Amino acid sequence: MGKKTKQESLVKVAVIQMEPEFGEKDRNVKKGVDYINEAADNGAQLIVLPELVNSGYVFSTRKEAFSLAEPIPDGETTRLWIETAQKRGVYISAGIAEKEGGRLYNSSVLVGPEGYIGTYRKVHLWYEEKLFFEPGNLGFPVFHTPIGRIAMIICYDGWFPESWRICALKGADIVCVNTNWVPAPSKAEGDKPMANYLCMTAAHSNVIFVAAADRVGTEREQPFLGCSIIVAPTGWLLAGPASSDLEEILYADCNLADARRAKSWNKLNAPLKDRRKDVYDEMLGVQDIPFAW
Amino acid sequence: MGKKTKQESLVKVAVIQMEPEFGEKDRNVKKGVDYINEAADNGAQLIVLPELVNSGYVFSTRKEAFSLAEPIPDGETTRLWIETAQKRGVYISAGIAEKEGGRLYNSSVLVGPEGYIGTYRKVHLWYEEKLFFEPGNLGFPVFHTPIGRIAMIICYDGWFPESWRICALKGADIVCVNTNWVPAPSKAEGDKPMANYLCMTAAHSNVIFVAAADRVGTEREQPFLGCSIIVAPTGWLLAGPASSDLEEILYADCNLADARRAKSWNKLNAPLKDRRKDVYDEMLGVQDIPFAW
Repeated sequence: MGKKTKQESLVKVAVIQMEPEFGEKDRNVKKGVDYINEAADNGAQLIVLPELVNSGYVFSTRKEAFSLAEPIPDGETTRLWIETAQKRGVYISAGIAEKEGGRLYNSSVLVGPEGYIGTYRKVHLWYEEKLFFEPGNLGFPVFHTPIGRIAMIICYDGWFPESWRICALKGADIVCVNTNWVPAPSKAEGDKPMANYLCMTAAHSNVIFVAAADRVGTEREQPFLGCSIIVAPTGWLLAGPASSDLEEILYADCNLADARRAKSWNKLNAPLKDRRKDVYDEMLGVQDIPFAW
Repeated sequence: MGKKTKQESLVKVAVIQMEPEFGEKDRNVKKGVDYINEAADNGAQLIVLPELVNSGYVFSTRKEAFSLAEPIPDGETTRLWIETAQKRGVYISAGIAEKEGGRLYNSSVLVGPEGYIGTYRKVHLWYEEKLFFEPGNLGFPVFHTPIGRIAMIICYDGWFPESWRICALKGADIVCVNTNWVPAPSKAEGDKPMANYLCMTAAHSNVIFVAAADRVGTEREQPFLGCSIIVAPTGWLLAGPASSDLEEILYADCNLADARRAKSWNKLNAPLKDRRKDVYDEMLGVQDIPFAW
């Protein structure tokens, strides 16, 4: 009898905003591990790092990209992340240039105290990534872990509502966004970057947590956006936006059970169940866009 | 040879934010027509009004809803809107309680100088609308008009990325949102309402104009949000947000050709063409959500 306990899945989430140096893999991975240790010291249990955080982003040749890529999970970067996750008892989601045979993928790995958990390969490639990487061929996996159901997407994937929707429909409690946001479209006076709003509306309409770790700095004349965030299933920010130019760690206490509890908005509306599959089939009929631009 | 002319489809769009009085249909329609005339005097060519702007929103019985609903296009409200559109040479998109035989729909009509153009019936019903209305059964039609390709969605539809996506894939240049936004989720300090961000991110990721006309006022204890907006295909605001409590008209000069010209973001990326249909088929496999809440 007595007082009812609120059911909880409390997870302290940390988002590491940092600047990798192009091609300096050892130094980048070491810096990332230092930040992971700092976040673990502060109690973080799920730690999210940016896209391609070991290699840097702006490859000028395929050969260069190939030389910086590693197999997963047997490459040295993933092995070091696994070792750190096991030593500290934390989950780590981080972006990495992946090599599988002759193919390159812009990937994210999830590792934890139990070791290697899984890989996501970026489905929507941005701009000159298309020159060197293959499009992701693993769909949008959702990994069931002791702390909750975790999905990962990468940067431009967030521009496609389908990415978030599939993660949510497959049960993700939290979507980690490993990203290298560039300043597009240019920011409107007084507003946050559009990338932030894409995360916020996706969190809201899918009722999920979102933890987006962006990089900072300028690499080979390409500036990056910073402004990392952690978002609640309401769509409002729990932490951030981080600065546009500094390395920093954001923290938020996330009760991942809320992503399930809040799936019903009232007695008559649960947005994922209010989807009109019968109507959306119409989308199939217009997949080949009936006009040109 | 000489100077190249920029190809344009310039349309002055007006969004009418107003307060209907519950059940006072004649007065509401007259007030709406007065505002339409004012907008036309100011040069507007496409004029958007809120959801259920003739009847009001908070029905307490089905009988009450039925008594305020009208057939389309032969009901007196639609006939008056057609007459006004023809007299002033403008296009009008407005929300209306529709009656078809014994069925009720929360609908929007589009009328123009050529007369009745088409109807949209709200696909995603919010809360107690489900007690009185049938879910929309006309899909998401896109109407080809002399000024451009026009779609309409209503309020809660905007919470479903599928609604915008289907309109965009079917070629909409502009989506009119006839809405009665309620304050949910509650607003975060310093941010616009989430409803605004849903329109902005949808405009951006689908490269479409969005014109959202909300109502103001409190009806049978239900407050409404105001904050009507007009959004460019970049996702940034062209006009608004309007106030949260006053009747007002927003205007924006929209070059609807931009919604087509801007569909390519660079030589390698056109977001609607970058969709990964092969991966999204995965969504079909998880339509019956594999867990309960």
